[in-house]
Amino acid sequence: MFNVFPTARLRPSPFFHAIKAEGCTSASIYNRMILPASFGDPEKEYWDLIERCVMWDVGAERQVQLEGPDASTLAQILSPRDLSNQKIGQGKYVPLVNHQGTVINDPIVLKLREDLWWFSIADSDIWFWARAIAAERGLDVEISEPDVSPLAVQGPLAENVVASVFGDWVRDLKYFWFNEAEIEGIPVAVQRSGWSKQGGFEIYLRDGSRGTDLWNIVKEAGQPYGIGNGGPTSPERVESGLISVGSDTDSRTSPFDIGLDRFVNTDVHDGVIGIQALRLIEAQGAERRVVGIVLDGDEPDPFGFHWEPISIDGVKVGSLTNSVFSPRLKKNIGYGLVNADVQLGDRVVVTRAPGKDVEGSAVAMPFI
Amino acid sequence: MFNVFPTARLRPSPFFHAIKAEGCTSASIYNRMILPASFGDPEKEYWDLIERCVMWDVGAERQVQLEGPDASTLAQILSPRDLSNQKIGQGKYVPLVNHQGTVINDPIVLKLREDLWWFSIADSDIWFWARAIAAERGLDVEISEPDVSPLAVQGPLAENVVASVFGDWVRDLKYFWFNEAEIEGIPVAVQRSGWSKQGGFEIYLRDGSRGTDLWNIVKEAGQPYGIGNGGPTSPERVESGLISVGSDTDSRTSPFDIGLDRFVNTDVHDGVIGIQALRLIEAQGAERRVVGIVLDGDEPDPFGFHWEPISIDGVKVGSLTNSVFSPRLKKNIGYGLVNADVQLGDRVVVTRAPGKDVEGSAVAMPFI
Repeated sequence: MFNVFPTARLRPSPFFHAIKAEGCTSASIYNRMILPASFGDPEKEYWDLIERCVMWDVGAERQVQLEGPDASTLAQILSPRDLSNQKIGQGKYVPLVNHQGTVINDPIVLKLREDLWWFSIADSDIWFWARAIAAERGLDVEISEPDVSPLAVQGPLAENVVASVFGDWVRDLKYFWFNEAEIEGIPVAVQRSGWSKQGGFEIYLRDGSRGTDLWNIVKEAGQPYGIGNGGPTSPERVESGLISVGSDTDSRTSPFDIGLDRFVNTDVHDGVIGIQALRLIEAQGAERRVVGIVLDGDEPDPFGFHWEPISIDGVKVGSLTNSVFSPRLKKNIGYGLVNADVQLGDRVVVTRAPGKDVEGSAVAMPFI
Repeated sequence: MFNVFPTARLRPSPFFHAIKAEGCTSASIYNRMILPASFGDPEKEYWDLIERCVMWDVGAERQVQLEGPDASTLAQILSPRDLSNQKIGQGKYVPLVNHQGTVINDPIVLKLREDLWWFSIADSDIWFWARAIAAERGLDVEISEPDVSPLAVQGPLAENVVASVFGDWVRDLKYFWFNEAEIEGIPVAVQRSGWSKQGGFEIYLRDGSRGTDLWNIVKEAGQPYGIGNGGPTSPERVESGLISVGSDTDSRTSPFDIGLDRFVNTDVHDGVIGIQALRLIEAQGAERRVVGIVLDGDEPDPFGFHWEPISIDGVKVGSLTNSVFSPRLKKNIGYGLVNADVQLGDRVVVTRAPGKDVEGSAVAMPFI
């Protein structure tokens, strides 16, 4: 819709020259970086992900590095999930909350050493957050952004591609676990991870000057498997029920509202940010829940960027936080962040624009 | 270069329908909002600003609202500038710093009541910052984003336009002072302010449902003065020496590095964030300074998004933090963030790309 150019404020990743050469046409901005979205054929890019494999420049998944004697202490203070048993080489998905228990980010938290952690973040400024907390609590920890840029390989054939580059050991990695490695002199960390539910890996490039080299190595290894381009903004993430913080959350969304209960441990120590608020919400029960919404009709009508009101019997019960046309379901689907008493199967009305009401149903997530 | 679409994460402003209707073609992303940059003719938009007047959707200048008994206390804790004598109805430009004295934003700080402040922010997340500090210090203050969206009217004829809408009282407003007002039932605050040095006002819309109405009122009032469209990303801001935090600053830039000394008062109380660090830097002297750089040659070559190395006699002395072609000077100009011992008049070499060195000179700022 609008042409956007990279600037010092809207940084391209080390894969910028590669994605330009590949013909990237549209992008999003994520963590103040260019996040490639499409190379001109979103439908092909979707099916490549579902049926084969794709490589994505996800350098916009920036790292907040905690390093120093108090790094582990700060990691736990920021995380309402118990990290005490986390091993070196292990990653965990953690919904971060503020003092009111509102979700502010949902990084993968990687433990590299006892005194070195990376928070591989979603789209909000956790450097500011972590620095403010560390300084106010007098912790001995340095918070910085390391030279690290993830490149994703996703899809059912992704493991073959990544194994052919790094070796069969990658096949034994458990979900979110990672190993440090090197390929043609390029330092990386390889993690089973990714912004889809089709399986795959993220290769954390640790030398920004080698972006094009790493891109070409993966691209060549992917040729036998028909590797394609694309970006993680496809309908697949909605079909798969993945939450996007900042899209599917508002200024009062708790982890319990959006089904992240299993990633919260309210028995962590009292100094963890937001833990008192989360205990209270847990005791009282969440006021809201997230449900799938399938709209009636089968004409693609995916566009929607304001939270669209959801009503039952003329009473507003929540909002449609996203909306895509699912190529596999051939339906317009999205998430409803609704009152806790909305039931699966309930019939709803979504006001997509003034005067444009569309009926639909509340369903279980994920959709597929 | 890349097509970007508004989403829940990349919010359009209340003027979105208006700027679409006007034919906005390119935009930046600022505070996770769409910031219109051009309507297809950047050179005309530049001269409209310099010679007549323009209206800009600057809704991306979002407001961080502090409200409650401790609002004034928190405003001062966040600000290394003395706010004790700030009057209701007055705004001040304040470089915010972190605990290390590094600039993290440079809002206009507006005092609406003793217990109600707005920080009209540049592009970084001050909600997170303010909430972390307030909660860690146990302050009784609510931090939120109010329904407020600035619309700028800039240029030598801007005062006539704004006076014809609101009355001649606007002519008496001192710089950064504001009044609350209403026009056709639309609540606003009118401030002498703006993202240029051509003079003008920002009209803070206080009802997001009335964006198109306010746009049309200003547009109609501007017709006799030849009001045009555009956006605040023009070469004018560089010619005028305005700092863009995040573009012209890095992860260790103090206010003293970038010539903001006069907006810092190191005699504010010890609880102000970063004040100890700033006192130390002030005592030791800044290691860097910002100078104007005029490149040799007169062919437009404005593009540059990585900080380009600046050298003297083969030794790197700093970086070119931005680069534009000045239509009035007919030269490529930019800012050099350089070692403090670089002198005005020094000849420099800027490495614009590997193997592409261009000579130039250090000059005083602003350029015009």
